[in-house]
Amino acid sequence: MAVSLKDVLGGDVRSAARLMRDLDDEIPAANRLLKRLYKHTGRAYIVGITGAPGSGKSTLVDTLTDHLRGQGKNVGIVAIDPTSPFTGGAILGDRIRMQKHAIDDKVFIRSLATRGHLGGLSKSTIDIVNVMDAMGKDIILIETVGVGQDEVEIVKVAHTNLVVVVPGLGDDIQAIKAGILEIADIFVVNKSDREGADKTRRELETMVAMNEYRKGDWVPPVLPAVAQTGAGVAELMEAIEGHRKFIYLEENLGQYQAGKARVELLEILKKKLVEKAVDDLERHGLLEPIIEEIARKKTDPYSIVEKVVDHSFAFHLIGGNDRTGSKRKKT
Amino acid sequence: MAVSLKDVLGGDVRSAARLMRDLDDEIPAANRLLKRLYKHTGRAYIVGITGAPGSGKSTLVDTLTDHLRGQGKNVGIVAIDPTSPFTGGAILGDRIRMQKHAIDDKVFIRSLATRGHLGGLSKSTIDIVNVMDAMGKDIILIETVGVGQDEVEIVKVAHTNLVVVVPGLGDDIQAIKAGILEIADIFVVNKSDREGADKTRRELETMVAMNEYRKGDWVPPVLPAVAQTGAGVAELMEAIEGHRKFIYLEENLGQYQAGKARVELLEILKKKLVEKAVDDLERHGLLEPIIEEIARKKTDPYSIVEKVVDHSFAFHLIGGNDRTGSKRKKT
Repeated sequence: MAVSLKDVLGGDVRSAARLMRDLDDEIPAANRLLKRLYKHTGRAYIVGITGAPGSGKSTLVDTLTDHLRGQGKNVGIVAIDPTSPFTGGAILGDRIRMQKHAIDDKVFIRSLATRGHLGGLSKSTIDIVNVMDAMGKDIILIETVGVGQDEVEIVKVAHTNLVVVVPGLGDDIQAIKAGILEIADIFVVNKSDREGADKTRRELETMVAMNEYRKGDWVPPVLPAVAQTGAGVAELMEAIEGHRKFIYLEENLGQYQAGKARVELLEILKKKLVEKAVDDLERHGLLEPIIEEIARKKTDPYSIVEKVVDHSFAFHLIGGNDRTGSKRKKT
Repeated sequence: MAVSLKDVLGGDVRSAARLMRDLDDEIPAANRLLKRLYKHTGRAYIVGITGAPGSGKSTLVDTLTDHLRGQGKNVGIVAIDPTSPFTGGAILGDRIRMQKHAIDDKVFIRSLATRGHLGGLSKSTIDIVNVMDAMGKDIILIETVGVGQDEVEIVKVAHTNLVVVVPGLGDDIQAIKAGILEIADIFVVNKSDREGADKTRRELETMVAMNEYRKGDWVPPVLPAVAQTGAGVAELMEAIEGHRKFIYLEENLGQYQAGKARVELLEILKKKLVEKAVDDLERHGLLEPIIEEIARKKTDPYSIVEKVVDHSFAFHLIGGNDRTGSKRKKT
């Protein structure tokens, strides 16, 4: 039995889970359904939670989920982190703690290993977020380590991005400088009952202050929290609400929506193009011989790619004129 | 003045550095040179060093470099990690320590931020490794955090992969289970003078023992080390040498070379295909309108990608028959 649009839009958990599995397996009916679902997305509020392993971001996700459930919100969680308790990659205590949500049917948890092939991680995340959105989740939390290109791209689908730091890791601030400052809408200094928390907070505040903001820009606040006890989480929720209001201003919403659309387009394109290229090369019996030739240095991958790319695309066909078949003269 | 093939093959550091910059800037002459360089690659021994931030992998790279320089080896280092001291993203002491190599012209260091667009990170790493190989580096060390898809793929270009773990982080072993066990040729328990090192080592050994190996498979050893003091590094060098002999066995070398060729082909393809697709869409003035339509839910990214992909590739043109133009009937 194929999954029905109605069931997913109605929020049926089993249908949504089945659809996600079918999408993983690239079942054509699931892909068709996904296209039809898309116009029903855009209602969920999406929050990215990025932090290094050990920063306590899973605990924060857990605590935020408690709060949101207390407000009667319907929550989706996507974990892209091999060390996340949600993916089974953590110490037993954490896993048990998280499992209280696993039996709550208003919390839908889906985890993704950070492995796979040919850019599939980003597309899978996009697919899952869209299904959760269409099924009526009020808020979707995306938990990611934020290291690696795919993760940095994927958080652009979030309305609000939290960057979680812990005190005492000297490298952390530097790592942020080098990479994730630009994605942070809110900084969370987690485990802020630890020594050095004030210092970390001041460093982050200085870093933010040194950035050049223009009028109307969002300036990321730096908030202390102890996710384990829930301290600071109410203030964090307020800050998220503040950023939600900012993003929903007319002049900002269009920019966010275009940014999200761009990431979706490019990440799906990336996966599908290389998949098609590889399929076609295989179907023509060319892939293995080409790899063999590269391995023997009889050719080089750059020249092969150039040939493949040169012979691809016919964009004059797009934009209204949708007829396929017989477009290419077989010589 | 364009960089000459002769200068790069001769090991001229300034020419190689210039070539790498030109490749970053996508200068056509640099791309042409890269193709010509490729057949001169395959002589360097490539070692991947993967570990979480804080595992001390940069210190290990530093210490290995000391050893290799002591043996008169010509070393290349590629750091793909925003927290690496090599990329400037670490505490000052480390940075100063590393800088002794920066003034040694037999050590070529190149760092890459884990950001960028559309899969460019993997291609850049491949390019840099190939230039370093062609310029006569005896050994190339690739330092990576190993989280994220690109990094997991990219280590497949290495002959030998070290996975660096530190004791006391309960999550670590779990993270390895979830992700990077399959890439490890050698496990290094770094900071093994710390409490819990024996436990971590035993856990890793148990994990390896539980894996099913067939006759002729490489079984990853688990080695203790203190990169900071150099303890255990001689034994690590021996283990790398042992794995080198294993990889160079006739039955294994072909498999490694084909694996490397496959990753090179697919990663370069991934970047170039999406680049071309985006360029073409932009050139036809289609990109922004499409993004706008997706953002307004008038269409969905899945349908757009399907259209783009359906109209791409004509692989019957590859493999000898190289004529372009007039292949596609313009309707």
